[in-house]
Amino acid sequence: MRVLAFLDGTLADPDAAHIRVDDLGLLRGDGVFETILVVDGVPRELRAHLDRLARSAAMLDLPEPDLAAWERAALAVIENWRGGREIVLKLLYTRGADGDPAGRPTGFALGMEVDPKVLRARAEGVSAVTLERGFTPELAERAPWLLLGAKSVSYAVNMAALREANRRGADDVIFTAADGSVFEGPTSTVVLAKEGTLYTPPSSIGILPGTTQFALFRGAEKRGWSVKVEPLRVSDLLAGEGVFLASSVRMLTRVHTLDGRALPDSGAVHAELIAAYEAEYAS
Amino acid sequence: MRVLAFLDGTLADPDAAHIRVDDLGLLRGDGVFETILVVDGVPRELRAHLDRLARSAAMLDLPEPDLAAWERAALAVIENWRGGREIVLKLLYTRGADGDPAGRPTGFALGMEVDPKVLRARAEGVSAVTLERGFTPELAERAPWLLLGAKSVSYAVNMAALREANRRGADDVIFTAADGSVFEGPTSTVVLAKEGTLYTPPSSIGILPGTTQFALFRGAEKRGWSVKVEPLRVSDLLAGEGVFLASSVRMLTRVHTLDGRALPDSGAVHAELIAAYEAEYAS
Repeated sequence: MRVLAFLDGTLADPDAAHIRVDDLGLLRGDGVFETILVVDGVPRELRAHLDRLARSAAMLDLPEPDLAAWERAALAVIENWRGGREIVLKLLYTRGADGDPAGRPTGFALGMEVDPKVLRARAEGVSAVTLERGFTPELAERAPWLLLGAKSVSYAVNMAALREANRRGADDVIFTAADGSVFEGPTSTVVLAKEGTLYTPPSSIGILPGTTQFALFRGAEKRGWSVKVEPLRVSDLLAGEGVFLASSVRMLTRVHTLDGRALPDSGAVHAELIAAYEAEYAS
Repeated sequence: MRVLAFLDGTLADPDAAHIRVDDLGLLRGDGVFETILVVDGVPRELRAHLDRLARSAAMLDLPEPDLAAWERAALAVIENWRGGREIVLKLLYTRGADGDPAGRPTGFALGMEVDPKVLRARAEGVSAVTLERGFTPELAERAPWLLLGAKSVSYAVNMAALREANRRGADDVIFTAADGSVFEGPTSTVVLAKEGTLYTPPSSIGILPGTTQFALFRGAEKRGWSVKVEPLRVSDLLAGEGVFLASSVRMLTRVHTLDGRALPDSGAVHAELIAAYEAEYAS
């Protein structure tokens, strides 16, 4: 099941061709995106995702997105969904076709089923490897043209890193700096649980501000957890009670093995945190 | 004038939609490309471009491209071109549509007119600024998942760097490392002329091997120039007789101003080098 909607709310066949060959999103990776989880018809953190889309667009000097139109497209997908309980809802926004005389950006919302691999990762956790990202934590502020922390569609490196993890027999990646600083996963935010406190690195080091991580921290605080946004090192991850990868669709995935080393069983902490996260969406 | 051909040699309307919304080239920047200059029906360095397409594809773990099919598509564009003397011929190859049950990669050749801005840059040269790329020269060998030196379509940073140059009142960019090492331009190879020798940095530092730079060095050697592929520093660029950006479509563009500082007039050297380069294609 797939549902495709454009920004005016009209639906279209998701299996048909809708994009020109000279779309700059395709030719140059010149666009931004969001992936939203919809459960029982309710999009999670929709406002945060839309705001982040606008933030990424600004970092790429794209025209300011009309967030009302984006919300309309998202809701059109949800209203017309006839598939499972959950929808993976992608918003994609590019600079548009190079040869389009009107110079219009490209934008659409695409609803898809959850990949069975995601369900397995949620249930069983993942093994991860640390891979160097090549950047230093100070770089994002110094060099905004590197688009560190923008959710651009130029994700070839993120995809290559996941393939490298697979080659090493692992499921996922935690990007690091040469000095051992923890950045993020290719499609997730790193969260550490230690002695009643949740930690995540600050987005100022050049990583994406995590919508799911933010919702988790909000929910966990209500249940007595402390939360801290501060730099982490790989050695910190080995010294806690749980390392997690937060992302919209996988929610909070346990990392059970890091660089081939088994981490302490974080099942109980995971259950507690998932309850705190889910409580944010209980009606 | 535009001409679009697919890998089986069939032509299609370049202004129609041919790409699905879930093409991984669009969603993830997960693809590679080449840009070839065609003059009077003759594609320049076609074999080198096809080989580099295959090299980039291997770096991204894409299926090995059928180079005979790519050549066929390129020639189909050239044969059906009814525009100006020169064609900008783009080859684009992506992992294909996520939801395509056949799992076929996407591939096409697109012929376009030369942008008037390019003609101006060829004639008048450009001003450039150095911008930090964030990587160190040793990284490419250590971290192949960063795809340094692959011509992937994940070019959002390259495009953002050019916009940053424009904001600074310049036309183009030379990417550098924090230690002052020279990498490449966002869409070009850096060439320095000094005392009868041409210099360019080695691709092993994580930059694209330049097809035009290679052809230039080949032609220049025949005319008595020495050529050296070795690391360069920004200070070297300021101490030579000419700094050039080599790229297929702009050929060899003079950098007349670097970081706001006028470089020595390289007009005579430029004319000599262009003659050496053009002689490679004289019939």
